[in-house]
Amino acid sequence: MVYQLGILGLGTVGGGVAQVLLTPEQRHPLLQELQIKKVGVRDLDKPRPVNFPPEILTTDLQSIVQDAEIDIVVELLGGLEPARTLILEAIAQGKHIVTANKAVISRFGDEIFTAANQAGVYVMLEAAVAGGIPVIQPLKQSLGANRIHTVTGILNGTTNYILTRMQQEKGDFAEILADAQRLGYAEADPSTDIDGLDAADKIAILASLAFGGRIARDEVYCQGIRSVTAVDIAYADKLGFVIKLLAIAHRDFSQADNALELRVHPTLVPLDHPLASVNGVHNAVLIAGEPLGEVMFYGPGAGAGATASAVVADLINIAALLPMGNQSHPLLTCTHDHYCPIVPLAQVSSRFYARLLAEDHPGVLGKLGTCFGNYGVSLESLVQIGIKDDLAEVVVVTHHVCEGEFRQALDEIKSLISVNQVASVLRVLA
Amino acid sequence: MVYQLGILGLGTVGGGVAQVLLTPEQRHPLLQELQIKKVGVRDLDKPRPVNFPPEILTTDLQSIVQDAEIDIVVELLGGLEPARTLILEAIAQGKHIVTANKAVISRFGDEIFTAANQAGVYVMLEAAVAGGIPVIQPLKQSLGANRIHTVTGILNGTTNYILTRMQQEKGDFAEILADAQRLGYAEADPSTDIDGLDAADKIAILASLAFGGRIARDEVYCQGIRSVTAVDIAYADKLGFVIKLLAIAHRDFSQADNALELRVHPTLVPLDHPLASVNGVHNAVLIAGEPLGEVMFYGPGAGAGATASAVVADLINIAALLPMGNQSHPLLTCTHDHYCPIVPLAQVSSRFYARLLAEDHPGVLGKLGTCFGNYGVSLESLVQIGIKDDLAEVVVVTHHVCEGEFRQALDEIKSLISVNQVASVLRVLA
Repeated sequence: MVYQLGILGLGTVGGGVAQVLLTPEQRHPLLQELQIKKVGVRDLDKPRPVNFPPEILTTDLQSIVQDAEIDIVVELLGGLEPARTLILEAIAQGKHIVTANKAVISRFGDEIFTAANQAGVYVMLEAAVAGGIPVIQPLKQSLGANRIHTVTGILNGTTNYILTRMQQEKGDFAEILADAQRLGYAEADPSTDIDGLDAADKIAILASLAFGGRIARDEVYCQGIRSVTAVDIAYADKLGFVIKLLAIAHRDFSQADNALELRVHPTLVPLDHPLASVNGVHNAVLIAGEPLGEVMFYGPGAGAGATASAVVADLINIAALLPMGNQSHPLLTCTHDHYCPIVPLAQVSSRFYARLLAEDHPGVLGKLGTCFGNYGVSLESLVQIGIKDDLAEVVVVTHHVCEGEFRQALDEIKSLISVNQVASVLRVLA
Repeated sequence: MVYQLGILGLGTVGGGVAQVLLTPEQRHPLLQELQIKKVGVRDLDKPRPVNFPPEILTTDLQSIVQDAEIDIVVELLGGLEPARTLILEAIAQGKHIVTANKAVISRFGDEIFTAANQAGVYVMLEAAVAGGIPVIQPLKQSLGANRIHTVTGILNGTTNYILTRMQQEKGDFAEILADAQRLGYAEADPSTDIDGLDAADKIAILASLAFGGRIARDEVYCQGIRSVTAVDIAYADKLGFVIKLLAIAHRDFSQADNALELRVHPTLVPLDHPLASVNGVHNAVLIAGEPLGEVMFYGPGAGAGATASAVVADLINIAALLPMGNQSHPLLTCTHDHYCPIVPLAQVSSRFYARLLAEDHPGVLGKLGTCFGNYGVSLESLVQIGIKDDLAEVVVVTHHVCEGEFRQALDEIKSLISVNQVASVLRVLA
């Protein structure tokens, strides 16, 4: 069989996908069955790494999703529109979809998968999360025996690159961000990455697969790395931690409705934890369940080659399944349509790190300890590290405590006359 | 649909599999379709963690593979016989196979997959390599876009446990092996693990999948960890390495016949390499290819829960595919029947570490350097570390060199009157 592909977008990722498809030698034999019929671009005259004859390129994206001869549409535009509309139109035309678009899947997955199920087509998205690391397929096909309870990921290469450099160079956020932008590791408008939105899209997708339910994207708590300082990285280091932007999805099986915790935030990770040594632009996903224990998937989270590897893997999977008949593969289709209940942040239990500036009086540590104790916040450590501008710098690490109770204690502490400032609050990986 | 299972073996792994199958709640819904019909054991009266009614247990393994109502046989006996014969008989009866048996697959895969293809049944083996870590399925279904060139694994938990403890405790092999045996981390007869045979079985299987050809198991070069000493671990540490038992499969695409290098040996791994921090009984597999780059899969390499996770994943995959029709899934069947050519060890290029004891004369280092140079062995470092029993202890690290040339140089060095002993030779990861 030969399957005709319509590719939407020929940027970095599209170019990478095309290059793999055009050099099938020594790759999987099923690549021989995949043929690029049309490639949709914004500008026909832009120079590109892959040269297509003029009859393949078009600026009319609509014509691709309507083309009756195209079997699979590969959506590599990114962003919400026109990606969403084109995907839905392609599905309505009975085409299978391969996409690398986490934003559109995390926000419109409901609509897209419902349409795909009605049309009996596949929507494959290995490239949408963690680039070239196989994690979507293993979640669908290799971990079904387990009661998965936690998915923890370093899912955004830009923020991990910045935090790694802050750690290694003891540099400040703003200057390293600027340098990352100069080097092409961060966008001119970096908000999607550094405010955690990209990681939140991705953990919503992983949670949906791991826990078998839909996720309302706006229920993912999301805090980026703008507030991480060189000072906190240095203190974390002394305490035996590195700071990483983690995306965490956790199901508490002891709760009646098995509600999920879903959050993205900078986190103190113990140095001996497998995620602590994931540096630079690498991504990693740690999945924990019963009876498995923990497995980690590690590799390149972005880039033309890594993303192309994932996109083409999805294409191979579709090409493998189509000759098997009209029935969809039950592990590769979305079989749930309920939304997972999400635990409100105030009820989420975490460990916390806080750095406070207080007047350098005897008894201040005692007062702080009492205040935390009043709200049931049990402390692992409470250390006055030094003096800064005549103020004592105090670092607190708590045991597990509900976010709400910790915040109440912090509010009371802020009102103490001897406490000048709560300089930073970060969470600590259990 | 309900599929009837016959399980051969109810030891640690069999017990783990049974426990998962008997508690399907909150696992994948397809588990509801898997029913244990018979379990074959050696001794009916042995107490077990899972209690089956007497009509389920049998010592007549033959009756299981011949049972017309059984759809899938789960082979968890281990070892070569009767596992091989029972698998072949079950295949002849049209039953699908799920096995955790690396020894039988690496040695008799040829016969087993040929029979399976003729009978149109699946032989699934996720649990045979790296325990609960999904690596077989990703190799089959997620990496097909790539020209994979290298698979590097820490595939044996026992040896990794021993080497980790030797590293951390600066202890000697024999005493830590004895302690590992006492604690149940090593077998009473530890040869399969510590001589590298188990890792060799596993890399043969991974290579077969990664490179799409059969592997003659006896062509895998195999050196275990008996010769690794605390002295070498300490020197490696000073040089920035840890010593790991690595299993390596490498395809050199520049060679005319794309022959493979296949080897298991203790290896100096740079401290910042992702495999360097894989400690204790954990396993990890690093797969490198174009255009992907490198991905690593990390997790528990053995144990009831981890292995059960992999076995049951295979069962779910079969249960998902069977209703789709009679045609086998092309990514889950063995489609190659040629044997991969293997590069003779003498032609394999490696970096080497060697520790020599030589007379403490001026000019000895010069003589050694000249000797290596005569055979084209380029040195990265040549250091006299200290004096031991009046002999100078010299540590050499080479650049890449063919094994054959290095060995010739070493033979000449051994014949030098001033060289007392070649105390150890290890390979260094590039």
